[in-house]
Amino acid sequence: MPYKPGRHFLQIPGPSNVPDRVLRAMDRPVIDHRSAEFAQLGLECLNGIKSVFQTSNPVVVFPSSGTGAWEAAMTNTLNPGDRILAFEIGQFATLWAKMAGNLGFRVDVIPGDWRHGIRMEELAQALARDSGHEIKAVFAVHNETSTGVTTDIPGVRRTLDEAKHPALLMVDTISSLASIDYRHDEWRVDVAIGGSQKGLMLPPGLAFNALSKRALDANRQSKFPKGYFDWGAMLDNNTRGYFPYTPATNLLYGLRESLLIFQEEGLQAIFARHKKLAQATRCAAQHWGLEMVAADPSEYSNTVTALFVPDGFREQDLRALILEKFNMSLGAGLGKVAGRAFRIGHIGDLNELMLGGTLCGVEMGLELAGIPYRAGGVNAALRYLTTQAKAS
Amino acid sequence: MPYKPGRHFLQIPGPSNVPDRVLRAMDRPVIDHRSAEFAQLGLECLNGIKSVFQTSNPVVVFPSSGTGAWEAAMTNTLNPGDRILAFEIGQFATLWAKMAGNLGFRVDVIPGDWRHGIRMEELAQALARDSGHEIKAVFAVHNETSTGVTTDIPGVRRTLDEAKHPALLMVDTISSLASIDYRHDEWRVDVAIGGSQKGLMLPPGLAFNALSKRALDANRQSKFPKGYFDWGAMLDNNTRGYFPYTPATNLLYGLRESLLIFQEEGLQAIFARHKKLAQATRCAAQHWGLEMVAADPSEYSNTVTALFVPDGFREQDLRALILEKFNMSLGAGLGKVAGRAFRIGHIGDLNELMLGGTLCGVEMGLELAGIPYRAGGVNAALRYLTTQAKAS
Amino acid sequence: MPYKPGRHFLQIPGPSNVPDRVLRAMDRPVIDHRSAEFAQLGLECLNGIKSVFQTSNPVVVFPSSGTGAWEAAMTNTLNPGDRILAFEIGQFATLWAKMAGNLGFRVDVIPGDWRHGIRMEELAQALARDSGHEIKAVFAVHNETSTGVTTDIPGVRRTLDEAKHPALLMVDTISSLASIDYRHDEWRVDVAIGGSQKGLMLPPGLAFNALSKRALDANRQSKFPKGYFDWGAMLDNNTRGYFPYTPATNLLYGLRESLLIFQEEGLQAIFARHKKLAQATRCAAQHWGLEMVAADPSEYSNTVTALFVPDGFREQDLRALILEKFNMSLGAGLGKVAGRAFRIGHIGDLNELMLGGTLCGVEMGLELAGIPYRAGGVNAALRYLTTQAKAS
Amino acid sequence: MPYKPGRHFLQIPGPSNVPDRVLRAMDRPVIDHRSAEFAQLGLECLNGIKSVFQTSNPVVVFPSSGTGAWEAAMTNTLNPGDRILAFEIGQFATLWAKMAGNLGFRVDVIPGDWRHGIRMEELAQALARDSGHEIKAVFAVHNETSTGVTTDIPGVRRTLDEAKHPALLMVDTISSLASIDYRHDEWRVDVAIGGSQKGLMLPPGLAFNALSKRALDANRQSKFPKGYFDWGAMLDNNTRGYFPYTPATNLLYGLRESLLIFQEEGLQAIFARHKKLAQATRCAAQHWGLEMVAADPSEYSNTVTALFVPDGFREQDLRALILEKFNMSLGAGLGKVAGRAFRIGHIGDLNELMLGGTLCGVEMGLELAGIPYRAGGVNAALRYLTTQAKAS
Repeated sequence: MPYKPGRHFLQIPGPSNVPDRVLRAMDRPVIDHRSAEFAQLGLECLNGIKSVFQTSNPVVVFPSSGTGAWEAAMTNTLNPGDRILAFEIGQFATLWAKMAGNLGFRVDVIPGDWRHGIRMEELAQALARDSGHEIKAVFAVHNETSTGVTTDIPGVRRTLDEAKHPALLMVDTISSLASIDYRHDEWRVDVAIGGSQKGLMLPPGLAFNALSKRALDANRQSKFPKGYFDWGAMLDNNTRGYFPYTPATNLLYGLRESLLIFQEEGLQAIFARHKKLAQATRCAAQHWGLEMVAADPSEYSNTVTALFVPDGFREQDLRALILEKFNMSLGAGLGKVAGRAFRIGHIGDLNELMLGGTLCGVEMGLELAGIPYRAGGVNAALRYLTTQAKAS
Repeated sequence: MPYKPGRHFLQIPGPSNVPDRVLRAMDRPVIDHRSAEFAQLGLECLNGIKSVFQTSNPVVVFPSSGTGAWEAAMTNTLNPGDRILAFEIGQFATLWAKMAGNLGFRVDVIPGDWRHGIRMEELAQALARDSGHEIKAVFAVHNETSTGVTTDIPGVRRTLDEAKHPALLMVDTISSLASIDYRHDEWRVDVAIGGSQKGLMLPPGLAFNALSKRALDANRQSKFPKGYFDWGAMLDNNTRGYFPYTPATNLLYGLRESLLIFQEEGLQAIFARHKKLAQATRCAAQHWGLEMVAADPSEYSNTVTALFVPDGFREQDLRALILEKFNMSLGAGLGKVAGRAFRIGHIGDLNELMLGGTLCGVEMGLELAGIPYRAGGVNAALRYLTTQAKAS
Repeated sequence: MPYKPGRHFLQIPGPSNVPDRVLRAMDRPVIDHRSAEFAQLGLECLNGIKSVFQTSNPVVVFPSSGTGAWEAAMTNTLNPGDRILAFEIGQFATLWAKMAGNLGFRVDVIPGDWRHGIRMEELAQALARDSGHEIKAVFAVHNETSTGVTTDIPGVRRTLDEAKHPALLMVDTISSLASIDYRHDEWRVDVAIGGSQKGLMLPPGLAFNALSKRALDANRQSKFPKGYFDWGAMLDNNTRGYFPYTPATNLLYGLRESLLIFQEEGLQAIFARHKKLAQATRCAAQHWGLEMVAADPSEYSNTVTALFVPDGFREQDLRALILEKFNMSLGAGLGKVAGRAFRIGHIGDLNELMLGGTLCGVEMGLELAGIPYRAGGVNAALRYLTTQAKAS
Repeated sequence: MPYKPGRHFLQIPGPSNVPDRVLRAMDRPVIDHRSAEFAQLGLECLNGIKSVFQTSNPVVVFPSSGTGAWEAAMTNTLNPGDRILAFEIGQFATLWAKMAGNLGFRVDVIPGDWRHGIRMEELAQALARDSGHEIKAVFAVHNETSTGVTTDIPGVRRTLDEAKHPALLMVDTISSLASIDYRHDEWRVDVAIGGSQKGLMLPPGLAFNALSKRALDANRQSKFPKGYFDWGAMLDNNTRGYFPYTPATNLLYGLRESLLIFQEEGLQAIFARHKKLAQATRCAAQHWGLEMVAADPSEYSNTVTALFVPDGFREQDLRALILEKFNMSLGAGLGKVAGRAFRIGHIGDLNELMLGGTLCGVEMGLELAGIPYRAGGVNAALRYLTTQAKAS
């Protein structure tokens, strides 16, 4: 392939840009995963990741993608044939429900338009219908990566409480963790699902389950056959910093470095930064006149912005043009919005000028693709960012 | 921790030493796993790994440890409650059988002394007893990492053939792949299980299933609930170089580099090198007067040598001393031989002088630990290696 | 230090951004500099660098900064007390002349306003005055890094020819090499001076002298005492790929990789890219209403743009603000324009979106610093770049 | 080239093995060498390196090889035509004297047999002859890399003192620094010369001058023309952590990491380790029956051992065989001992097992080359090392 000068702009909503420090931390020899040196690494990672989930409960780490952590959430807490309540709010919510079906669970899927998060009244109704408490788990995606829509997880918790429904609350934090405020304990989530390749600023290959006491109780009752993803042996080994099978050591080196970085920048500062960069992105989008997939401002995502292209245009053409001309990857439209919406990822190790370059690429791409837009979106973003910088 | 000068000697039987070239190949930004650039990477890896298994059938790659690939082998081909035949020849054979039990399969375990591989007559008898062909799978570990014992896989195949038994043959190649000759197609293995962190010279985090036509047929009949490890979506996506969920991209960068290295050195040369270094290790062990766990010379492993310490000594003390004084990690005794045998890994990216240093460390450790031994084991190894070098 | 999220924007006119590929190529063990493997590396570098200078004559490589290559140019070709003609066109031209003085040469410096390159009429007059051909060397800086002004080297050559003056022509290509078209042989330059840390996309630490036949002849006559920078032993050892003393091996690894990249992108494409990105920068500057230090459009640099801040403002304040708020380094004003002009580096491994981000940072910085400017400079650049992208 | 499995053994007396930590520290983007961040790096390096020289005087750092630091030592303190006293004790001592001659100094070279260091009586006589104090500098090589002979620097100092001779004492510490105890201030050395690629465990590319008050005084009187290597501008810029021209930033990253490592291991522990590994090497050599080039045990080097091959054999054949068969680089015979002696480097980041592998390679090489030797040299080394380990 001919050399593409300069840095590639990886502005998909994950995998995200891995800081050089993290890449370097992983670029070292593997160590014996039964050694004292490893145990120290293991404990640093297992303890450190708790603060990111804002939990004091155990967090289980698998060598897998986030999909594996979904499976783990179900198979560790439920029994064959259990009923699950899910909401079709986007591609990943849908995939998760589908996987539950494949695993033999009965899944009630509340349909959606892919432009909103979970609507509390629909959740309340579904729970009310389930007077027998057949529903054992409610699935919620905190930030739907395919649409840029966040769901109000405290609202979900409140609705469950108000319904006095004992279903476990399972939350996908894959594209919110370490980017959008997520409070595992305060919100009393039972199982959270996370992945390494987004806000944690790591390459893909690690996945997480943050647990609750109730989840651990459910685990003891669960008869679902499980092996690789079994929490039991994990938790037992983890107490001493070890894992029941060979862990992905080099990704743990990376995780340790990411956790250090989080301490240096501070979680609250990270959330504020994501909010600021997301808002700048929306300023540009609004100026361009592109409609957001997220219909409700209260649900706008701070890690990904999905934008419709006007009728008569295909998002894949726009993205291909931008990739070819400007060496930037944007996120594809998925599922229901395939062909109609593209996504700008603004998650992880990002700053104003990287976002500036990103928006420049989108604005030039719109022009090249012949898509009607109002020039000056970058400008609008800069005005917003300058105001923010003045205030800081 | 105070600095330990020089290189650590990682002489456990995996994870093995990762060549700098491979570490460097992984030390680069993640790319979009939906891009054309990724597809090229995916295809190179998926095609290239076939030659390592010596197969023309598909090889499935999971972001997981080898344990995950075991689970995948079972859940993709069997049905709930199926009967499996397994042999307790060592720690990993035992763990695999135990996992099968946890997943709800019925497992017949033929007991063993952990010093031999599968005995063909015991296999033949077990198959003969199963006239109703209830046994759906036979588990075999090609190279038992815990004992340094190899099993004659062509013999297993022959025995199955002679019994005209239709059970699927599943082979764990985790510590033999790319180090000891393994011929998936020629030996008509149905599912092979592999991992990244041994002969493939990668960090842990990838696992493999090499398939057969019969395995694919069985997959279509399998009703076992599965999600993450489902071959179906994998094989479908793999045809275009993609994966159904986020792959461990950076490990794939590494795999591509390892595959290049294999082409440069040549698989046959790699097998010969492992044989030579293993033989040199055994020369030293014999000279020292340490008994091998592997009782039958025809089953000696070319990737790991497990050696008993004399009664009255503990292998963990020896290893701790060697780690402290000479900065070398050796493999612990596991399961039945815990406390009694230690293991020297000689797998992967290794050469004569690295092995020389390793044996120096063991010989000095024996002296320091006060273990009775005959000095000159290193010498004996050098004599053998010199003879080999003269002949080459 | 608190973590600064995202990538630092290193937009000084060198050291420039080192591609990850080049950093990775250097991140490997040193090899024996007397080995056959090294000789291959040496020959690849020594041959490859010729094409970058567009010469078939030898290029000498020193472990040093560019300053060392300046010294080498003089001490290898001149004799103590020789007369040199230099032009005070900017900071580096001035430093070079000063160094010549320190080394005991007699230097005639033609004064300048730091806003123009060498004026041919002034050169012609100086040569005409020197009817005795006392002047042994003429110094020219191809691209004055401190001001963003290029000098017409073919014009200098022509002027020397027309004057029939035998002085050696010495050209500083430090911030033009591999970025702005430089033709060593065609322009009959006698000694060119280059450094690793700009267009060659390497860290600092290597410096270059491209030679001519006349320079080699002069070298044989030179009585100037010299040691480290002596071409003689260099050229002798270089024929076999070696060096007379320990070379900076890891930087040579990097150079080999840069040379590969040049082959992939193509020198002409690289020159065109620098021209395009420079033009885009000037579009922004013009829109902002900031005056360029370079007064003559025919002398605008394609690697660095120096811009005056209005009276009453200090460039160092602007840069400090941009560094603090937006994590970008810009070039300081040097010498005569210190405090009055800042510099935007656009040299080396750069693309449209990196430049976009850079210009966003400058525009926001102007706003924050309260410097009068017309908003929309980034927009103006994007319009230009879009037009260029359409045409490509 | 076909892949050479395992690690290359780089056992030349420098460049030495670079720890992965140091390579990783250098594998990061360049920073602005005029920034506050750089100043911090500069100060850490400039202060830290003093402790390695055991001096409280300034240490100057050049982007160059050690040869450049030699030149700097002379041109900064002497005047054209000054007389220098040198001793032909090996290749590097000879080269240094030759360079002095090339630079126009008058050099008195006391001949030697390349098997001894400076003999104090010869030094005393030479000083006594120089009643007019024409000799302005005495050159001494602390550890002659070509022969493995150390010179008693305190003895040299004492002899100068006793002669009441004011000549500056210049000491080459290139292959002793940070490996063999060198005390700049205590021994009242005036200029020490060092390089990055040996005991400092860095790639080549940095060189050092440690100074004394007298050297600084001499510098003020020196009329020798100088540019690149001028201490003046260096010292001036260094006070604030900067350099007068672009420094080799990435090597400074590496130096900072090496300095950290020195703190962790401790200089005294490093000297003791080098002594132990050198002694083990000599045990092997003695057992093999190979004669050392160093004739006097009190002058044995702790960083390099040069060994004669018996008459009728060529050291280059032995080395070529070892490189081909066992992937190890040994040092060539240089100058007077070319063809007759090879060198084992044991400097820098080395431990017992790396040395064990090294000696295994030499012993096997002797056998393959048909050189008469007594088998068991490795054994002898192990016995010594085991005794040492017991005592520690």
